Amino acid sequence: MTYCVGILVQDGLVMLADTRTNAGLDNISTFRKLQIIEVPGERVIAVASAGNLAASQAVMQLVTEGFGEEEEETRTLQTVGSMFEAAQLIGKAVQRVYAADGPAMEAQKTRFDVMMLVGGQVNGGRLRLFQVYSAGNFIKASPDTPYLQIGEHKYGKPILDRAISHDTELLDALKLGLISMDSTMRSNLGVGMPIDLMVYRRDALKTDLVRRVDETDAYFAGLRSSWSDALSQAHKAIPRPPYSGEIGAGADD
Amino acid sequence: MTYCVGILVQDGLVMLADTRTNAGLDNISTFRKLQIIEVPGERVIAVASAGNLAASQAVMQLVTEGFGEEEEETRTLQTVGSMFEAAQLIGKAVQRVYAADGPAMEAQKTRFDVMMLVGGQVNGGRLRLFQVYSAGNFIKASPDTPYLQIGEHKYGKPILDRAISHDTELLDALKLGLISMDSTMRSNLGVGMPIDLMVYRRDALKTDLVRRVDETDAYFAGLRSSWSDALSQAHKAIPRPPYSGEIGAGADD
Repeated sequence: MTYCVGILVQDGLVMLADTRTNAGLDNISTFRKLQIIEVPGERVIAVASAGNLAASQAVMQLVTEGFGEEEEETRTLQTVGSMFEAAQLIGKAVQRVYAADGPAMEAQKTRFDVMMLVGGQVNGGRLRLFQVYSAGNFIKASPDTPYLQIGEHKYGKPILDRAISHDTELLDALKLGLISMDSTMRSNLGVGMPIDLMVYRRDALKTDLVRRVDETDAYFAGLRSSWSDALSQAHKAIPRPPYSGEIGAGADD
Repeated sequence: MTYCVGILVQDGLVMLADTRTNAGLDNISTFRKLQIIEVPGERVIAVASAGNLAASQAVMQLVTEGFGEEEEETRTLQTVGSMFEAAQLIGKAVQRVYAADGPAMEAQKTRFDVMMLVGGQVNGGRLRLFQVYSAGNFIKASPDTPYLQIGEHKYGKPILDRAISHDTELLDALKLGLISMDSTMRSNLGVGMPIDLMVYRRDALKTDLVRRVDETDAYFAGLRSSWSDALSQAHKAIPRPPYSGEIGAGADD
């Protein structure tokens, strides 16, 4: 399992990904799922992936090393002219990998499943965040829907639904992304530390922060316990249901 | 979609179910998914259902009206001698409905999908909570795992994971169940009001509370806004990531 989230706000972009992969519960490994292509002053493109690991690695190979000498497609993420082209290229690579391996995977009862987030900015273009599906098609984040998630997205969604908006400050977005990651890791053992993260400030054309957060990270440990305490306090502060007055008086429906 | 949760604590049992059903987004209705069989002083059995509505209604028909005159199975939920028998009977009914309708449903590309929670107590027996699967087999709640969920369970799980334990007070369990329902309704439009709930105090052999909570319920409206405010305060109280000091200093990975 995997959890990755991208948050696109007024001030910039935050991307987070866990690193746990598993082929069955008895085969758990750590893989980087957040890849960053950075040429300071020229481009920052971050790609997070979920789904079948062999397929997503094959996609990353195509979009960073190129499709091959005899291929019509000559672009890579290092050369695309815009984020829209980056999403298009990844979609094309997903379709290419499906054509090569999808039928054989299905013959082995393995579903072809690749989801990607691609976010960043290319000089002269706009900061964008896209989600590319297994079919190679894609959607983009907007001020109305400022975040996109792939993988095990449900546990970490309520906090984002409540707290993220287009004008959320960039470091608050990072903090909320970490809370969302914490909720997911607590409920699904298939999502685990360390966490890779990137913060990009709009128009900077270089990353502001690229970091791997592991068990020794004091801030993240503090965030986990503060959040847990705060949730306990939050529900304790809500009064018990007044329906209790009816208890013993039988059904009131 | 549906969300139902049963919480079995030291003091008793809480069960909650939403009432929204949909056959496509353009065909949304309200159906009771929490059924209660109560003979004061003798038995209280509550059944919540998720999955295919036709199948779960067929199951409820069999277990409350009987399997039929020519059938070997003569018990109903009104006559079973224990909660274990109640779970067995429901499992058997699920298998019977699958035998009757499952292949025809699969021919129409509709998955046979029925999940049930059954909780309560029969005079002379113990208070129990079971979850019955589409295969008719079942598991029971225990002090280690005091709650069971069916349907759209992920959004509402983090708060239960953090806050529910075997010694949670009964009305606190009800409050936490309502918070869990609120989180689910916020993130999945297929789960909706009104909410049916039941509270049963261990060994009472009558329900303490049976209630339908709708939009006009002042306590639930207050709980929703208090919880939302508390979550906002909770994340605001956590400091921003100190990694900000590194911003502008380039990648530190």
